Amino acid sequence: MGVGSRERLVVVGGDAAGMSAASQARRRRDGGGLEIVVFERGNFTSYSACGIPYLVGGVVADPGRLIARDPDTFRSAFDIEVYLRHEVTGIDLGRRAVRVRDLDGGGQRWEGFDQLMVATGAVPARPSLPGADAAGIHGVQVLDDGLAIRRVLDGQRPRRAVVVGGGYIGLEMAEALVMRGLQVALVDAAPQPMTTLDEDMGALVADALRKVGVTLHLGERVTGFDTAAGRVRAVTTANRVLPAELVILGLGVRPNTALARSAGLAVGATGGIITDRRMRTEAAGVWAAGDCVQTRHLVSGAPVAIALGTHANKQGRVAGINLGGGYATFPGVVGTAVSKICGVEVARTGLTEAQAVRAGFDPLAVVVASTTRAGYYPGAAPIKTKIVAERRSGRLLGAQIVGEEGAAKRIDGLAIALWNGMTVEEMTGLDLAYAPPFSPVWDPVLIAARKAADLVERTPCR
Amino acid sequence: MGVGSRERLVVVGGDAAGMSAASQARRRRDGGGLEIVVFERGNFTSYSACGIPYLVGGVVADPGRLIARDPDTFRSAFDIEVYLRHEVTGIDLGRRAVRVRDLDGGGQRWEGFDQLMVATGAVPARPSLPGADAAGIHGVQVLDDGLAIRRVLDGQRPRRAVVVGGGYIGLEMAEALVMRGLQVALVDAAPQPMTTLDEDMGALVADALRKVGVTLHLGERVTGFDTAAGRVRAVTTANRVLPAELVILGLGVRPNTALARSAGLAVGATGGIITDRRMRTEAAGVWAAGDCVQTRHLVSGAPVAIALGTHANKQGRVAGINLGGGYATFPGVVGTAVSKICGVEVARTGLTEAQAVRAGFDPLAVVVASTTRAGYYPGAAPIKTKIVAERRSGRLLGAQIVGEEGAAKRIDGLAIALWNGMTVEEMTGLDLAYAPPFSPVWDPVLIAARKAADLVERTPCR
Repeated sequence: MGVGSRERLVVVGGDAAGMSAASQARRRRDGGGLEIVVFERGNFTSYSACGIPYLVGGVVADPGRLIARDPDTFRSAFDIEVYLRHEVTGIDLGRRAVRVRDLDGGGQRWEGFDQLMVATGAVPARPSLPGADAAGIHGVQVLDDGLAIRRVLDGQRPRRAVVVGGGYIGLEMAEALVMRGLQVALVDAAPQPMTTLDEDMGALVADALRKVGVTLHLGERVTGFDTAAGRVRAVTTANRVLPAELVILGLGVRPNTALARSAGLAVGATGGIITDRRMRTEAAGVWAAGDCVQTRHLVSGAPVAIALGTHANKQGRVAGINLGGGYATFPGVVGTAVSKICGVEVARTGLTEAQAVRAGFDPLAVVVASTTRAGYYPGAAPIKTKIVAERRSGRLLGAQIVGEEGAAKRIDGLAIALWNGMTVEEMTGLDLAYAPPFSPVWDPVLIAARKAADLVERTPCR
Repeated sequence: MGVGSRERLVVVGGDAAGMSAASQARRRRDGGGLEIVVFERGNFTSYSACGIPYLVGGVVADPGRLIARDPDTFRSAFDIEVYLRHEVTGIDLGRRAVRVRDLDGGGQRWEGFDQLMVATGAVPARPSLPGADAAGIHGVQVLDDGLAIRRVLDGQRPRRAVVVGGGYIGLEMAEALVMRGLQVALVDAAPQPMTTLDEDMGALVADALRKVGVTLHLGERVTGFDTAAGRVRAVTTANRVLPAELVILGLGVRPNTALARSAGLAVGATGGIITDRRMRTEAAGVWAAGDCVQTRHLVSGAPVAIALGTHANKQGRVAGINLGGGYATFPGVVGTAVSKICGVEVARTGLTEAQAVRAGFDPLAVVVASTTRAGYYPGAAPIKTKIVAERRSGRLLGAQIVGEEGAAKRIDGLAIALWNGMTVEEMTGLDLAYAPPFSPVWDPVLIAARKAADLVERTPCR
């Protein structure tokens, strides 16, 4: 319970969203007015989950570098009390208290709150298949997962690995394992890796993976895992048996909302907690942010749950500003994502062509091949840019980029154009930066906009 | 005169604007309906003037690589007749004809037109100082200038060079000459190089220049040139004498409008030809585009003349679409520019803090230091981002970036935000691409927007 007149904020989950909220709340209200207590069931606060593949691949040597701030820093510099290895196991909205279990045997207790911040993150999808719990099968969700995989690589020195799932994490892990010298096979039920891209663009990513030696088994569903003495020996699909001493699961994540549901907080169709744009749940004084919530896709208008550190940080910041008495909103997302896989940069924003059709749009699409710099300038690298636009209005609906060094961050400009509802015709006039080391005189983004605008113009008015 | 019923388009100037217009007109109207004739006084068509410093510095070996398309290609593939070394010396709007001089002794003749495209480009500013016409003093405007400087470097092998003028071209040439092993001094009357940046950001560029060994003499005006036997020996300023066997003039350019003026076409306060957004001059059937026109600055609302290949290409395209019977507009510019100097990437868009004050705004400004990638990811390079916003409304007014590899192209996102009139508060929610090889979890652009938004919030309402 809050002590005397001092209000008490309890934060459930000490990663991006939770700690951003705590920090922002503290910036606006000092310790005399607001006590802040964070319960985190894991061993770390505020680390970069996106950095795990680089830790595994050896690009980053020291795991400590992935940690932005540790509990001591939060305590001393921000007057925020953090309890690691403390899991919140219940929320009683009536009593305004959470039940906390000390995972190191300290038992269970109730902790009161005036304001509650739910930042419980996501849980990895785990297939309910025979053998799925065997040793040697690893998810990639928390920093401890990354450390565990690294220990396996350094200790048992496996030769063969299978990655199940061809999303961002699966592909980044495949690359990391190739870098560590393993033979790597990747299995995905979809006909292409990275289904957040259209097939034509996904095929470019598949080529890049094959080029560095990853064996792709696409359109194949995993049916189980062969084990011996509790250890994985192979991954089985409908078509084959893939021997492996190490298996990485990259099957995506879903919002971790068991706690929120049991407390009666509303959860949407995506599985994420429902909040308003100020990150308030429907319960008074209860906020939620990060991978555990759903948000709005600003192009399709549909609710979406996208687990991404950058959204978690922004939503946490917004919740914290509001918690602290300020005013801020998180309006939604346009679905921007970027990754670097085997030297190929991949980025996307908005809707793919296929998604646009499913969302009820009549889209047109163009793909243009260009270079990242002026063709004559050293280091000019190939870049393919796909633009999807509404056929009649020319309104930008989405974009995808696959290219080499210097290609992918161009997606930001497209994401901002999308955010502002620009048409491809308007985009042809955009004043983008040009100099030979940075772009051809027509930036690839402008070339794509031009080609798309040409198609819009030729669309007959019926 | 147009032959029979076939219309005739005459294009004056065969570089970016002129050839873009010709190509677009041809795409929409074939040779049976529209004859296209281009007169270019120089030796080349459609080359990258921005590539000249790289040709001089040896980054690009073959000058042919700077030429996008030669006259033969235009003739054979586009049915566009190009006459090189043909200078248009007069326009008679009444007779609808231009007077053309064959610079290789072929005399002078009149050529009729139905439509006229004026794309006469810019002329470099040359100081009217004693000795300014001496051998060894070179402007950097056309490809021949670059070839001439390269011949000097390869033949006479000068040891010492002075660059007069610290704008983009001056700085890029200073770097090129350092790369060629010369001792280089740079003189500018302004207290900083690159006056298109605020002083705090310009100082970072000055540091980069000094680091590679360029001696800077800032706040010093050139008073003349010492010569011997018609060759330059030194540059004199109010404070000193700088010995040099090679002098580069980088004093900027102004619209080349002598021809347009003499024909009675309206020229604005900037010295550029006045057109509407479809690139029509006030004379029927007469169009203009490129470095010779003025356009609108979309932030200040003021007319500006900015000589940049990217604008020339876009304006030429718009003129050509309209010429060909289509509809397109060039709405204006936001003043985006980028350059790479001695390993430092520099970019700007919109108004600087100083320009914002001069334009009558009450601006606030923030500068944030961050990194181009996640701090723990190899190759994370420093980036400083400055954002200028209107103090009361929070509307973005401009931005500047100085950093290393991967920094500068972020200006595109800021230019698009500016184009759309976004406020810094809105920008804090932008869905920009995040992954460790590309950005910290808060992109530097978002950090700058956040800091600026904090200041807007704290602005008292009076």
